[in-house]
Amino acid sequence: MFEVAELGHSVERSVYKERSASLRTQLLSVQDRLKASPCPVIILISGVDGGGKGEVINRLNEWLDPHYMRTIAFGEPTDEERERPKFWRFWRTLPARGTIGIYSGSWYSDPIAQRVYQKIDDAALQAELKQINRLEQLLSDDGALIIKCWLHLKKDRQIARLKALSKNPATKWRVTEKDKQHLAMYDDFIGVAERVLTDTSTPYAPWLIVEGSDIHYSSLSVGQHVLERIEQHLERQAMNGVKAGEAANGVSSQVEQYHLLDTLDLSLTKAKGDYRKELEKYQGKLNGLARQAQALKRSSILVFEGWDAAGKGGTIRRLTEAMDARNYQVIPIAKPTDEEFAHHYLWRFWRHIPRAGQVTIYDRSWYGRVLVERVEGMASASQWQRAYSEIVNFEEALLAHGITILKFWLHIDRDEQMRRFKEREKISYKQFKITDEDYRNREKWDDYQKAVNEMVARTSTSKLPWLLVEANDKYYGRIKVIRAYCERLEKMLDEHKK
Amino acid sequence: MFEVAELGHSVERSVYKERSASLRTQLLSVQDRLKASPCPVIILISGVDGGGKGEVINRLNEWLDPHYMRTIAFGEPTDEERERPKFWRFWRTLPARGTIGIYSGSWYSDPIAQRVYQKIDDAALQAELKQINRLEQLLSDDGALIIKCWLHLKKDRQIARLKALSKNPATKWRVTEKDKQHLAMYDDFIGVAERVLTDTSTPYAPWLIVEGSDIHYSSLSVGQHVLERIEQHLERQAMNGVKAGEAANGVSSQVEQYHLLDTLDLSLTKAKGDYRKELEKYQGKLNGLARQAQALKRSSILVFEGWDAAGKGGTIRRLTEAMDARNYQVIPIAKPTDEEFAHHYLWRFWRHIPRAGQVTIYDRSWYGRVLVERVEGMASASQWQRAYSEIVNFEEALLAHGITILKFWLHIDRDEQMRRFKEREKISYKQFKITDEDYRNREKWDDYQKAVNEMVARTSTSKLPWLLVEANDKYYGRIKVIRAYCERLEKMLDEHKK
Repeated sequence: MFEVAELGHSVERSVYKERSASLRTQLLSVQDRLKASPCPVIILISGVDGGGKGEVINRLNEWLDPHYMRTIAFGEPTDEERERPKFWRFWRTLPARGTIGIYSGSWYSDPIAQRVYQKIDDAALQAELKQINRLEQLLSDDGALIIKCWLHLKKDRQIARLKALSKNPATKWRVTEKDKQHLAMYDDFIGVAERVLTDTSTPYAPWLIVEGSDIHYSSLSVGQHVLERIEQHLERQAMNGVKAGEAANGVSSQVEQYHLLDTLDLSLTKAKGDYRKELEKYQGKLNGLARQAQALKRSSILVFEGWDAAGKGGTIRRLTEAMDARNYQVIPIAKPTDEEFAHHYLWRFWRHIPRAGQVTIYDRSWYGRVLVERVEGMASASQWQRAYSEIVNFEEALLAHGITILKFWLHIDRDEQMRRFKEREKISYKQFKITDEDYRNREKWDDYQKAVNEMVARTSTSKLPWLLVEANDKYYGRIKVIRAYCERLEKMLDEHKK
Repeated sequence: MFEVAELGHSVERSVYKERSASLRTQLLSVQDRLKASPCPVIILISGVDGGGKGEVINRLNEWLDPHYMRTIAFGEPTDEERERPKFWRFWRTLPARGTIGIYSGSWYSDPIAQRVYQKIDDAALQAELKQINRLEQLLSDDGALIIKCWLHLKKDRQIARLKALSKNPATKWRVTEKDKQHLAMYDDFIGVAERVLTDTSTPYAPWLIVEGSDIHYSSLSVGQHVLERIEQHLERQAMNGVKAGEAANGVSSQVEQYHLLDTLDLSLTKAKGDYRKELEKYQGKLNGLARQAQALKRSSILVFEGWDAAGKGGTIRRLTEAMDARNYQVIPIAKPTDEEFAHHYLWRFWRHIPRAGQVTIYDRSWYGRVLVERVEGMASASQWQRAYSEIVNFEEALLAHGITILKFWLHIDRDEQMRRFKEREKISYKQFKITDEDYRNREKWDDYQKAVNEMVARTSTSKLPWLLVEANDKYYGRIKVIRAYCERLEKMLDEHKK
């Protein structure tokens, strides 16, 4: 597949000057239009050592307006990065809508290197590529433009290039021991690269292969490609913008009816005396288990969803009372900030992924996408429909990192909700919890019920089950939650001992 | 000073229950009012080991609404933190306006421990405390409420407490080797703490000393104190809000006239041929110097200010052309995002402080506070007037961390500015750079001139000089800037070799 990039392409200096001047004007103009669009642009510059990645990136930096562009490079992961799932370091750097991120090194660097050095086998490489494809699809579905450029160099040219770099004192530093090793493994490297490029050249994120032996040629090729892809993308975006509006009707009628929630027995209760005793017992237990988990650097994520007034806050408080305040964060999810709104909807949850040994409790969560955003029409049908698998993939990535995840749906019926609204209005320090919006949401009970049923059905997997909590009786619900977390931690610790 | 906290205060369980219930209601109510205010609340919980810091923090977490509160704990600094000035890790966690941050461990932990272990002497401790006072003053001036609580324990009680903790399997983990060491050094520790508390009990951030032997007593005392301080602060804030409005007139007439800018010789030029030669020479030089600095993990911060159309962008590009794109970030400063607006005005600059070996170029900067915000009345007179020393302190902290800082003012005259506006309107890819606002700002030339003169006079110190750049001739200005950066790097590298 690299033959086309071994022909010895080059561009005369005079031609380069002329063409780069006109390209720059066009790039600035398209970048100006991009600013007003809801699309982030992600440019990956990869390729063989000595293929001129750094030079091409420098040219792009020269040509584009630095106000709406950033270059992101990765070294060894920092400890803050190592303690989180591997894509976390990429998520934290993703460009905001309307801006460009140029990646020097990316999610491809590690899998390729690991396969070349035979630290992983083909099957593991395929698994990695699958995750990469999902990430790129997810970003692309959200409006991101992904431009991937591979700078290739024929073996003899790579040898010549590294020699030239070594000779010049101004560039000698660029040739590392790793480069020399890579050269020795050129054929292996090319073999792996071929497979990777084939399996990750998707309609939404195709690779461009560019010959890297002449910097004028490669930078013009990449620049021209960036220009064309952004232009196309903006055109397509302008057309699809209209479509998305049409489809913005929140509740699709094609959706099958699910009735999981109706199977819950909301008459379950727990007497006050039993509640007191069991609460003390499980809080004591949780305290010990949480400490052990912390000592072993095992993190947890607890997700709380439920009807308004279902008792999420009170339940969370019964958990945190038993934990060390230095060990957990409660993240209440409200309206996104503008920085959050300028990124993929999952970005603001990635921000709070716990470090090793820590616990994050989300009071409402990413499931807002398929609940409130769906019902209120804030997400288009295609957006919330694809969110089910995006969410499962996201949670699986957390799981793969060894994080313990529990998802609770706190369920009450409509009458109980009304009773609690009235009660809240009477108690001085609870009044601020109840607003007109709560009554408005209540009107849409049936739509929400449908959305909840579908959410549970589509995102409950054997590894990531929803825990449905009968919460008409607060005591019953709280004990069920705290016991479930204890049991899950116990199981995790048991497995750890083996 | 700790006698008052050695009397053996305690509270009966029944009294505790009653008082904590009423306290909780009041805390929630005041927290609700806080939400709507522009004030962040910073609560530091410090004290002797075994003084019940963790327990008090847990109680506060129970009592307050978790939606607008976070607990922040610090372990060993991560590598991302170590590579930046020491206050960076605190800045990144500061609570937003209207919210509460509870600090378990804080900027006090390190100086106290280092003095007790005799790693620093009294003079160094004093220097640290001075920096802390400045930080607290700066936050307080910005509307933050700082509540500092010290949990004290008599020596015999500390011994008894640690023994009790060690016996109970549920609390044993809390007693570390460090605690035992600290106990052996109790008297030294108390001596240092006394000095620290005395020197940092300021009108804007006084310490509360609380006896820590009974958790009911200490948590009620801290809770009551938090309640009263927030109530007072909100009252004062409501009154001062009016005052701040009165004083919001941007340009004070009392300000002395400075005439530094008038001394610049704007007729200085450089012929095109010379420019080309010198640019090539200094870009080559910069390339080598920047690589050496990177290898030595020495960071740089370059600040660019100047009149509209003074050529900041073009000058920055001539610098970055010579550098590795993976080694620098250009941070263009425009309107703050809402997350940035919810913090101290320096917060958004702290976000981009470079890691070890990296370069951050600010295209406009924190000096906006004393330029555009002053002239346009976006900052009150007292805000921009105190900003001069806040800024110098900030830059000194960067300097103390070993960062190389250069500040450039690019100067042109009014006629030259008009000529460039007209020119920009003619060139296709420069049109987007010129807006009505540029013409409006131009109308206020005299006000800006006064502000610039005062800024330079007040923030140019021997260690942190402003470099005034005669930029009517672009060639002249660019060479002056790149040469200055080269010379500064050379000096830094020379000193490093010694």
